[in-house]
Amino acid sequence: MKPSIPKGTRDFSPVEMIRRNYMFDTIKTVFREHGFLPLETPAMENLSTLLGKYGDEGDKLLFKILNSGDFTDKLKPEDLPAPLLEKIGLNPLQHAGILTSTATSNTLATKICEKGLRYDLTVPFARYVVQHQSEITFPFRRYQVQPVWRADRPQKGRYREFYQCDVDIIGSRSLLNEVELVQIVEKVFGKLGINVTLKLNNRKILAGIAESIGYAEKMMDITIAIDKLEKIGMEAVKEELLSKGISEEAFGKLRPILELDGTNQEKLVKLRSAISASETGLKGIEEMETIFGYTEALATGLDIELDLSLARGLNYYTGAIFEVKAKDFAIGSICGGGRYDDLTGIFGMPDTSGVGISFGADRIYDVMLGLNLFPEEATIATRAIFLNFGGAEELAAFKALTELRANGIASEIYPEAAKMKKQMDYANKRGIPYVIIIGSNELETGTATLKNMSTGEQSSVAISQLAEKLK
Amino acid sequence: MKPSIPKGTRDFSPVEMIRRNYMFDTIKTVFREHGFLPLETPAMENLSTLLGKYGDEGDKLLFKILNSGDFTDKLKPEDLPAPLLEKIGLNPLQHAGILTSTATSNTLATKICEKGLRYDLTVPFARYVVQHQSEITFPFRRYQVQPVWRADRPQKGRYREFYQCDVDIIGSRSLLNEVELVQIVEKVFGKLGINVTLKLNNRKILAGIAESIGYAEKMMDITIAIDKLEKIGMEAVKEELLSKGISEEAFGKLRPILELDGTNQEKLVKLRSAISASETGLKGIEEMETIFGYTEALATGLDIELDLSLARGLNYYTGAIFEVKAKDFAIGSICGGGRYDDLTGIFGMPDTSGVGISFGADRIYDVMLGLNLFPEEATIATRAIFLNFGGAEELAAFKALTELRANGIASEIYPEAAKMKKQMDYANKRGIPYVIIIGSNELETGTATLKNMSTGEQSSVAISQLAEKLK
Repeated sequence: MKPSIPKGTRDFSPVEMIRRNYMFDTIKTVFREHGFLPLETPAMENLSTLLGKYGDEGDKLLFKILNSGDFTDKLKPEDLPAPLLEKIGLNPLQHAGILTSTATSNTLATKICEKGLRYDLTVPFARYVVQHQSEITFPFRRYQVQPVWRADRPQKGRYREFYQCDVDIIGSRSLLNEVELVQIVEKVFGKLGINVTLKLNNRKILAGIAESIGYAEKMMDITIAIDKLEKIGMEAVKEELLSKGISEEAFGKLRPILELDGTNQEKLVKLRSAISASETGLKGIEEMETIFGYTEALATGLDIELDLSLARGLNYYTGAIFEVKAKDFAIGSICGGGRYDDLTGIFGMPDTSGVGISFGADRIYDVMLGLNLFPEEATIATRAIFLNFGGAEELAAFKALTELRANGIASEIYPEAAKMKKQMDYANKRGIPYVIIIGSNELETGTATLKNMSTGEQSSVAISQLAEKLK
Repeated sequence: MKPSIPKGTRDFSPVEMIRRNYMFDTIKTVFREHGFLPLETPAMENLSTLLGKYGDEGDKLLFKILNSGDFTDKLKPEDLPAPLLEKIGLNPLQHAGILTSTATSNTLATKICEKGLRYDLTVPFARYVVQHQSEITFPFRRYQVQPVWRADRPQKGRYREFYQCDVDIIGSRSLLNEVELVQIVEKVFGKLGINVTLKLNNRKILAGIAESIGYAEKMMDITIAIDKLEKIGMEAVKEELLSKGISEEAFGKLRPILELDGTNQEKLVKLRSAISASETGLKGIEEMETIFGYTEALATGLDIELDLSLARGLNYYTGAIFEVKAKDFAIGSICGGGRYDDLTGIFGMPDTSGVGISFGADRIYDVMLGLNLFPEEATIATRAIFLNFGGAEELAAFKALTELRANGIASEIYPEAAKMKKQMDYANKRGIPYVIIIGSNELETGTATLKNMSTGEQSSVAISQLAEKLK
């Protein structure tokens, strides 16, 4: 019986880890250069912190942790779901009260579980900010790179444990923060070598559009429908909107807005006249103009596109919204985020505006692997291995090895004096680029034979020069 | 209602994170220099992988994850503990079979939970090796730095979520591997600045001692008792051993062995005559002599002490055992490990010997904090901040900032043109060492005023020279 891991989870082998570390290090370096500070929160949060924050669907996807000790201790009969009690063969005459109770496996779960695994990094961040508000210097710039867990049905590219890389500035309404995030997107994907388009939109513009076509109160329905434009096409969006009670006439006004073309500036000019009746909408246009003004003045090299169909599902966004797509690889968005004006309100700390984006590590990894973007250094862990001939040769090799390591060169010695072929096989399979031989001849002359495993070339090097040679 | 986190868990604030990253980076760098490869396994393992691996006590401390969906669906009446059923008021005449079932909350837990959080990094490592044995090149050198979870009663210095840093070599019986671990201990604590003693012993020696005093079959009891020597003293150890059925006479033979003094070599010589009748014991002594031979030949600077009372609780050790203590700070062991000959046997892959150690991140952190060992660089995240005066000055500052960041200098701009005092307060509270001012005067001359926040010193620097100046 071979052991296995839960479906939807993964082991990361050394090769994968070395690549992932390269990716994470690149991202974190950019975050740090931009003055963001690291934060980590516990894997487990109180369920009361998590429940109700991700919609009904999200609640179902939370992994819940069974209370320790006798978790059945405080259960009452009415906590058990009726189908379970019926199995026991309860008598309806005797137990009517219990059998008609509204308990379900969901309500029972909250009686036997107080904790759950974090579902994203945003809610724990909001919780942290509220809990530690007196210690935090605002505006608070934090990054957080940790796994999250969702009990989603596993499928290709969708996992039950995956990493998020979030960066947020909270406690400042300045649009400079949005501009910083644009710069971070440019720099991260520039360093990783991924060609991207940054799609920008603004929730206020979406509200303005809804208002202008006469359905301010249906903004969420409109948002949800047009978010699907790219996937399902204009006709299907129309169908969905009509089914939500939007009139043909209103859709007639909406359609040309969604089909606006030209440069970002041209789009904004046309949009301004289309939604000129909405104060909120005009505010959104102004925000976008400010952001574009900065990115132009700073000569941002990024391909930025105003995309009026970009909506992003999450309810808490109130201003700019971002989404990044890889140009040369077919995959969903690889990064996204936006401005939220009241994320901490759910925990009792109102009026704290923030803006943030999240990098999707798994998809970025897939893009890099697919486009062969991991540099060779990001695949080599150990630079050199000493063969082991036992006795005095072994000791000389071990001493030389200690010296290499002291010079920061990742290296090792084969741990026993096995047959030469076995040792070379090991070096080969591990992909170690240099093999170092200190045999009896070399020992006499204080030299080592350095073999380049990719060219097969061999050279004699003074042992004292090995570190210099391998740097 | 202020939000909170589950007891025994922690948020790591930016200051703590920066220190922890310094510590982890130091440890990982040493691991990599020694040719170890990174590995990560999922937070959740199948409960079948975890149960029975840590003793009954450990099983109780596993965090179990409630099955998704309707977890009550497959429950049978006899899965429910009798006390719970009695609460419902079941009729003993009608339900005798169910009410006398042996279900407890523990057995019920295994019916509604298939997964648990990992309890350590060793069992997941063994599981990984067995599962991926055909892809792994042995000897396999891996390190793993990840959190683990235990439902222990929280107390000072004991958490329910904490990090382990494990390093293991599996698939080689060579004692060179033990020597490498000794070198790693020396280097890690040398780099972190912690004075330590490495205590060494060998399970074969402990077996030899048990055999020599006539109680080979009570080796575990003897091991457990003498492991407590330092804590409870010789008399209490004696009492415990007598209560386990060890005779006065046998204890009379054991005592002088535990009280052996002198250098490691002297101890081994005396020990050799004391346990000369035990073949296993002599093998253990030989192993220790080999290891000491290497560490002397390599001029290891570490303080290594043969400690015959060192036993370590974990059953799976079969050879050398290690434990590291800080000399200048009162805290338990900060690192420990040993040789195991059959860790993977539990998953059906026998005869795969390995050796490893685990660094206790939380205790090492406490030692470093207590002894003030974190270097100043490990507390500063952001090196410079530009004040914000709006308009053209803001844009000039933002451009200069972009240049600094391109040079890898972590820096930021205050996001809005707030009052000078507010901006300086922010810089102060954040502990940012340099403030950069580009006001209207500076803008005209293409200079910036650079203020050193610790000395108060101000100087005028050409904007183009800022990066050079701050490197």
